[in-house]
Amino acid sequence: MPPTPETSERYVVGVDFGTLSGRAVVVRVSDGEELGTGVHEYPHGVIETQLPVTDELLPPDWALQHPEDWREVLRTAVPAALAASGVDPAAVIGIATDFTACTVLPVRADGTPLAETELAERPHAWPKLWKHHAAQGQADRINELAHQRGEKWIGRYGGKISAEWQFAKALQLLEEDPAVYAATERWIEAADWIIWQLTGTESRNTCTAGYKGILQDGSYPSEEYLAALHPDFADFARTRLEHPLAQLGSRVGSLTAEAAGWTGLPEGIAVAAGNVDAHVAAPAAQAVENGQLLAIMGTSTCHVVNGAALADVPGICGVVEGGIVEGAYGYEAGQSAVGDIFAWWLRQGLPADYLAEADVTGEDAHQLLTRKAAGQPVGGHGLVALDWLNGNRSTLVDHHLSGVIVGLTLATRPEDVYRALLESTAYGTRTIVEALEQGGVPVTEFIVTGGLKKNALLMQIYADVLRRPVSLAASAQGPALGSAIHAAVAAGAYPDVRTAAAAMGRVERGAYQPDPERADDYDALYAEYAELHRHFGTGADKQLHRLRRIRNTALTRKNEAS
Amino acid sequence: MPPTPETSERYVVGVDFGTLSGRAVVVRVSDGEELGTGVHEYPHGVIETQLPVTDELLPPDWALQHPEDWREVLRTAVPAALAASGVDPAAVIGIATDFTACTVLPVRADGTPLAETELAERPHAWPKLWKHHAAQGQADRINELAHQRGEKWIGRYGGKISAEWQFAKALQLLEEDPAVYAATERWIEAADWIIWQLTGTESRNTCTAGYKGILQDGSYPSEEYLAALHPDFADFARTRLEHPLAQLGSRVGSLTAEAAGWTGLPEGIAVAAGNVDAHVAAPAAQAVENGQLLAIMGTSTCHVVNGAALADVPGICGVVEGGIVEGAYGYEAGQSAVGDIFAWWLRQGLPADYLAEADVTGEDAHQLLTRKAAGQPVGGHGLVALDWLNGNRSTLVDHHLSGVIVGLTLATRPEDVYRALLESTAYGTRTIVEALEQGGVPVTEFIVTGGLKKNALLMQIYADVLRRPVSLAASAQGPALGSAIHAAVAAGAYPDVRTAAAAMGRVERGAYQPDPERADDYDALYAEYAELHRHFGTGADKQLHRLRRIRNTALTRKNEAS
Repeated sequence: MPPTPETSERYVVGVDFGTLSGRAVVVRVSDGEELGTGVHEYPHGVIETQLPVTDELLPPDWALQHPEDWREVLRTAVPAALAASGVDPAAVIGIATDFTACTVLPVRADGTPLAETELAERPHAWPKLWKHHAAQGQADRINELAHQRGEKWIGRYGGKISAEWQFAKALQLLEEDPAVYAATERWIEAADWIIWQLTGTESRNTCTAGYKGILQDGSYPSEEYLAALHPDFADFARTRLEHPLAQLGSRVGSLTAEAAGWTGLPEGIAVAAGNVDAHVAAPAAQAVENGQLLAIMGTSTCHVVNGAALADVPGICGVVEGGIVEGAYGYEAGQSAVGDIFAWWLRQGLPADYLAEADVTGEDAHQLLTRKAAGQPVGGHGLVALDWLNGNRSTLVDHHLSGVIVGLTLATRPEDVYRALLESTAYGTRTIVEALEQGGVPVTEFIVTGGLKKNALLMQIYADVLRRPVSLAASAQGPALGSAIHAAVAAGAYPDVRTAAAAMGRVERGAYQPDPERADDYDALYAEYAELHRHFGTGADKQLHRLRRIRNTALTRKNEAS
Repeated sequence: MPPTPETSERYVVGVDFGTLSGRAVVVRVSDGEELGTGVHEYPHGVIETQLPVTDELLPPDWALQHPEDWREVLRTAVPAALAASGVDPAAVIGIATDFTACTVLPVRADGTPLAETELAERPHAWPKLWKHHAAQGQADRINELAHQRGEKWIGRYGGKISAEWQFAKALQLLEEDPAVYAATERWIEAADWIIWQLTGTESRNTCTAGYKGILQDGSYPSEEYLAALHPDFADFARTRLEHPLAQLGSRVGSLTAEAAGWTGLPEGIAVAAGNVDAHVAAPAAQAVENGQLLAIMGTSTCHVVNGAALADVPGICGVVEGGIVEGAYGYEAGQSAVGDIFAWWLRQGLPADYLAEADVTGEDAHQLLTRKAAGQPVGGHGLVALDWLNGNRSTLVDHHLSGVIVGLTLATRPEDVYRALLESTAYGTRTIVEALEQGGVPVTEFIVTGGLKKNALLMQIYADVLRRPVSLAASAQGPALGSAIHAAVAAGAYPDVRTAAAAMGRVERGAYQPDPERADDYDALYAEYAELHRHFGTGADKQLHRLRRIRNTALTRKNEAS
């Protein structure tokens, strides 16, 4: 008699730390079946206005988070997922996590966040969320100096280090609050910090070190380069970043007794190296072969794709060897806001008769506007928008850009603007795909995961604008499932991530097909988008930069006066 | 014993025909006191989608009205105003009217609108409202040919005849529906047609003939010029427009028995020449001296100002000798949408918590957003908009332009956009004032009348953006009171409009004063507006034109398919 499957089955836990919540999923190792999930909304959400501990207003463009919100995910979402799954915790063999990036925090040598010390009243002591956009000045200088000195690594980042990343945020910390900088013994990605909470020891992963931390060919930027940025920055990488790196899917430690207590999981099980929400999702969608571009579409979009060769693609976020899976060059690009833009439009409100209609139909606001917009002919609203309401990550790498809507008339309706915003993000994606292909990275398949894949109009618009089929990841929890796949590899259940992806990942190929006539019409509109992109996004003295300076000066003056 | 004032007082009636309603006011001749008003909303409003008599959809950019809606104002609003005033109808000595312009209709030789004949199912038989914007192609050709032939009159219209005016709309009629054109025995401004209803005879006034009909130095454009536009257009002016002209404030006839029956006024009282809502308002605000610019601010804004000399000012609507008052050159400019833009934004809806707040405070939506926007520092929202949601009347004279909003971020709130839209109209006004002054027409005072003068934030923004005091007309019914003043002159109670204005008009001088610091900040934002104005409004191949063509093609194709 063979062993009963019930008794031989093993399980893993993946935990995905997003912008507003964390979610855990319990997954069967043999086939990737998701058996239970748990979600924890961060009580502090995104801290943009003032710290929880003071009344002082934060400057414009800041975005922080609370480390305790993250720990609470381990204490609540993981047990909830376990309970929902009905799985015996003793059958769980590993855990892995993924995080937004670059979300980065200053900690003591023992991992204590400075936000939880006597420095808590200083904004710079707090974790800076990925969308903290107040370090653009520092990023500009990082880039200028890198090009001036001919630093080889700058080409790996599309020619521009983002203001969202480790070095720009750290330099802002040093320049604006040297005392907090001095107290910063380690500068660590939240992706790695959360692993520290699980294993009790520091680890660093290849993915964030490469994409967010300027680690290329085994080294960080030189001390000479860093000193030229600021004398006190010279030893930044050596003293605050350097650490042996762990490959994705490798085991970096074992679950401590304390973390076992939080999560309800067995002490000593495998903990995988930290990872990033975008990159970790690739195996969940079986998007691990070269040319398979995965778009993780939620509040923002990340694009990850593997390539056989190393190419410097202007405007991408970065290329890292083994940055997605071992044995390939992982390319990353992104759009700083996508779902956030649609939500922004809904936050402006809806007409009373629309709300009444939604009451009758039972639709939510997104469904209502999607239905009203779906019947329009392409171009019927007369609008084109720039999808830069949260800046532009790729291909301009400029977080001081902002959004533009062109073609408004007195006849423009809420669903017209909504559709124009959906389309603007598709144009932004097309810009990125074209940059990759022109830069020498073939894109053979376009695969979508994340919350937005359920909007059929949006997916059809992407297929039409890109003139390509759109495949869909089958899981509703792409990153969490991806983490679980990494946990299975770390626990030794599979030899590598590719093998695990084949067994545990799922994808629906060609779910949306482009319509040739609509694609032709979109070509004309994309040309208009490209003209706006050029006019507002390039050149030496950008109007959108001037408007932001005017805004920030006005708000700062007002804050100081009040 | 002197005669008692009660028995010797005399009264006049002014009737203002607006875009959505007509209003009548009963006014005391001696001092301009307004004693009673009546309003009638047009049941058919603006006809933009389909005719009342057919299911056929109208093409994009059309805007028509129903002549019966206008007659109904005489039958309902005038008696209501009389009743509200308590005045003995026998003491009323005259009536005058003013109208939107160029609102123009095809009629038979007896004044019967073609819309009320067997041609009623043909869209071109209907009165075209001022904001009918489907004759831009005709206007373009009118202008091109005028410049080619060096027609002297084109300079009097800022170099461009508007698509809103008599000749462009008539040429569209001829080219798109020759049968209705052939049935058109007279082509007449609604301003004059309504007088025809009151007096039973055709009359034509100097104001609309000059500003909307290309009558300059006593002549319409030549038959050679018109024939070059279209062979069948050669006799257009001679056969369908020409008629002796009546000066503003002159008596053109007496109230017929039929009209006396409609209005409840005495048969045989004086009826003044037709007039335009903007121009007629000048005496009501005592804005009749050279340099006093009156802005009539409502759904759109008209600017009228008198000058001592004749100057060709690029981009203004027109200059007409005696076009506002006798003995001066009357200049007109305008913005195609102002209040309409703010209303457009509110039509997009408001957040639920804003609506709840307004419920508590008792504010309407405009008041709520105005209050929320009022506390912002200048530039604090980071936005600049182009106020072209209904095209640009001055100084670009281009109704195929559309609106643009620049600088949007995820933090942008409804009150931010609202304030940016308020400001955009102030920038549009500044562009016009600067064009007048640079063109040789001094502007010594800025006076506002119309519904928007009650928005204190808007008025302060205008003072700050213009860096000039803003005076306010005291009457809430500027055009209707202006008409009443003209009625008093037509009835012989005053020798001319200037004298009547001094006795019956009222103005609060310098009600809003510019703040120097805010004015400085607005200079910087106005520079950004000017850059957008140049980028989107000038040049040979305009992006906003392309988007409109794409839109119109898409909508037409869809209408034809359905």
